[in-house]
Amino acid sequence: MGHRVIILGGGFGGLYAARAFGKQSDFDVTLIDRRNFHLFQPLLYQVATGELSPADVAFPLRAIFSSYPKIRVIMGEANDIDVVNRRLLLADGGSEPYDTLVISTGARNHYFGNDAWAAYAPGLKSIEDATRIRHRILYAFEAAERATTPEEYCAWLTFVVVGAGPTGVELAGALGEIANDTLRGDFRHVNPEEARILLVDNSSRVLGTFAPDVSQHAEKSLIGLGVRSLFNGRVTSIDAKGVTLQTDHGEQRITAHTVLWAAGVTASELGKIISERTGVALQKGGRVPVDKYCNVDGHPEIFVIGDLAWQLDDDSKPLPGVAPVAMQQGRYVAKATRQRLRGETVHPFHYFDKGTLAVIGRASAVAQFGKLHLHGLFAWLTWLFVHLMYLVSFQNRVVVFIRWGFNYLTYNRGARLITGDPVPYEAVRKISPKDTDSGNSAASPAPMNQEPEPVRN
Amino acid sequence: MGHRVIILGGGFGGLYAARAFGKQSDFDVTLIDRRNFHLFQPLLYQVATGELSPADVAFPLRAIFSSYPKIRVIMGEANDIDVVNRRLLLADGGSEPYDTLVISTGARNHYFGNDAWAAYAPGLKSIEDATRIRHRILYAFEAAERATTPEEYCAWLTFVVVGAGPTGVELAGALGEIANDTLRGDFRHVNPEEARILLVDNSSRVLGTFAPDVSQHAEKSLIGLGVRSLFNGRVTSIDAKGVTLQTDHGEQRITAHTVLWAAGVTASELGKIISERTGVALQKGGRVPVDKYCNVDGHPEIFVIGDLAWQLDDDSKPLPGVAPVAMQQGRYVAKATRQRLRGETVHPFHYFDKGTLAVIGRASAVAQFGKLHLHGLFAWLTWLFVHLMYLVSFQNRVVVFIRWGFNYLTYNRGARLITGDPVPYEAVRKISPKDTDSGNSAASPAPMNQEPEPVRN
Repeated sequence: MGHRVIILGGGFGGLYAARAFGKQSDFDVTLIDRRNFHLFQPLLYQVATGELSPADVAFPLRAIFSSYPKIRVIMGEANDIDVVNRRLLLADGGSEPYDTLVISTGARNHYFGNDAWAAYAPGLKSIEDATRIRHRILYAFEAAERATTPEEYCAWLTFVVVGAGPTGVELAGALGEIANDTLRGDFRHVNPEEARILLVDNSSRVLGTFAPDVSQHAEKSLIGLGVRSLFNGRVTSIDAKGVTLQTDHGEQRITAHTVLWAAGVTASELGKIISERTGVALQKGGRVPVDKYCNVDGHPEIFVIGDLAWQLDDDSKPLPGVAPVAMQQGRYVAKATRQRLRGETVHPFHYFDKGTLAVIGRASAVAQFGKLHLHGLFAWLTWLFVHLMYLVSFQNRVVVFIRWGFNYLTYNRGARLITGDPVPYEAVRKISPKDTDSGNSAASPAPMNQEPEPVRN
Repeated sequence: MGHRVIILGGGFGGLYAARAFGKQSDFDVTLIDRRNFHLFQPLLYQVATGELSPADVAFPLRAIFSSYPKIRVIMGEANDIDVVNRRLLLADGGSEPYDTLVISTGARNHYFGNDAWAAYAPGLKSIEDATRIRHRILYAFEAAERATTPEEYCAWLTFVVVGAGPTGVELAGALGEIANDTLRGDFRHVNPEEARILLVDNSSRVLGTFAPDVSQHAEKSLIGLGVRSLFNGRVTSIDAKGVTLQTDHGEQRITAHTVLWAAGVTASELGKIISERTGVALQKGGRVPVDKYCNVDGHPEIFVIGDLAWQLDDDSKPLPGVAPVAMQQGRYVAKATRQRLRGETVHPFHYFDKGTLAVIGRASAVAQFGKLHLHGLFAWLTWLFVHLMYLVSFQNRVVVFIRWGFNYLTYNRGARLITGDPVPYEAVRKISPKDTDSGNSAASPAPMNQEPEPVRN
């Protein structure tokens, strides 16, 4: 019986931790996830926009670890942690003892206390989220084709993306391509190019975590795709008919049937349980504070990594919630555990920032490698290469490469299927012109040919 | 304004009709479907068994027809037909006038009056059905891995496929491959090869529509994959815990958490409306009788084709509900309509039977081309070739070819994702040994190492 390691969560942190632990024969590793697959989140927006299929960006965990005899995979959910007896309690009533526990359950969509918005503005964290968003986007054009009034037509062709971080920029850029390229010629009444794509953010620029000149390049690319940005706009309400913003110019109402949420995530529910059981106080976004060794205070046997963890770098700034941090932490905790068991010196975790990429659309991306800032074709090729290389299976690399190639050559998106409920949104669909919010003084919907205000110059 | 043709349903019949009408400039064609895609039904079982993704077997209708300027595609559902004023009434309140109406809305799952069985034994007609079945199959192995009693373990590893036609044989064969090859080495407690796969049918052989020697070859292949057939078994009940059969030996109970339905389909709901509006009496399976010209009696402007139609061949036998019939009828109605409009002689529809194929598993299929009966590798290669060639888009042909190649070489199924409700079947999962039907005198569950009875010798 080796040292028992439980890894909770099969995202980037859990996957890399499991691989690193699994390569060493002195550990009995159990990987527990609610799902039976690892999800490659960075390409999830392409599932949402009909370019890739769910199976292209998700990999069965058992297949990944079938060649690791010391790794056991369980599909299950953790309900609680018995930190005294070192047992993880599962939702199915079972429990799993551990000597070392690695928690990497990540983050989930967060609506800043307005959970009702979730029904109208899906976020993008799971496969189901992605197919839901795909359904909304594609169905909007179908409904516009059948619209009987200009108001309805306009509301179906208005897309609001809330949040101008990487996910919001990717979604808005892909929407621009769908409207301008993919659907061109597909409709007899609708002109997809009349779609209004609005990117709303409460800051003053897109990609706020990047350098200002990178943001500027990104925004230029978005404008080229027909995406308009509304800055300094705080969302105050979302319902079936649109979004209300509080801007410098007062309240603004946007009538839109399709609102996508890319504005915020919060740490997984498990953070609260860790806080209750160990006494640590959760940080911003519900994240669990960990020390330089990724440990929860007073519990050298519990590691928290990835988006769930709140770890300060050498400048006392929290590490960002991005995949490379989780991957490096995953590898680190396996190494640190082995070193501790052998009585060797354990060095603190140090994040090595290889650079950041964000894609906007066809042949268009931005990249920031330290002081080197790139944009355009070269950044895009780098993005393609990096994402293909990090895909887990060789089969998926080949299939994704082929799909991208076809998409690049034909502008077609093979996965634009509307699945789920056959004819949805009946309630929303049958709005009459009277039902729209045009009566609201500050909120008359902008005509299709008018630029929304305020637009950044 | 040309002759207005409405085609209802984008399956094989509707697709081929729309293409044939669309190539002629004198028709204004409207294709209406509830879904935004054409579904390639023959490969749907591969989505259900984790080999392909939904987008690999479904093609956006708008993409197919974007190069046909005379074809308009509407995503919608027909509620009624006004045969007097020649208008189709849609569920969204709109109506569409027609000069010629082609109805090809196909068939749906049919539980012989026991609709409650649908919840326990999903059929295989839609993308949603396929992902639901995939979920059930894969989740069963996950639950078996966590099972705490032998009874639970056995119930999760027992798979019952009801119906031994082509779909049932394909599903059972794929289940055999999953258990014997795909999941080998993936579990630490479960031995997937212990799975019991039972193919139940009320006839005396598999593939009853094929010649007896072909059935025999198919059954031999199934036995090689670990599939056991129970013949002359009539299902009398299906619930969350299993299936009850009435056999020659009396009542038999099979405890199983996974039951798949491939036993019957019935014509789409629209058949009833056609019957009410035109006065024709529906035939077996709710199918609409049509004359030699695919017309409903007294309505030369209404064609019914595909699985919804009941058309007799020269020997007064009904044409089978298979894709080639629908395709040929689709092409025929376009030709017949043009000939009628031009006052030319219209010849009756004649079905040309090119032969029938059924696949069982890796390198194993059966084929019947008139008096030529094939089985094994050559039949399988024919099956692969035919199915790749009939796939609608070039991109999908390439992707499916690659996925099949990987699957052939690695035995892996890339699309084995459990999506939908994260941890489902809680109610089913927590059965205690006492809850199983072992108390029923005629129904003690067979131990895993015992052959079920009666097995065909």
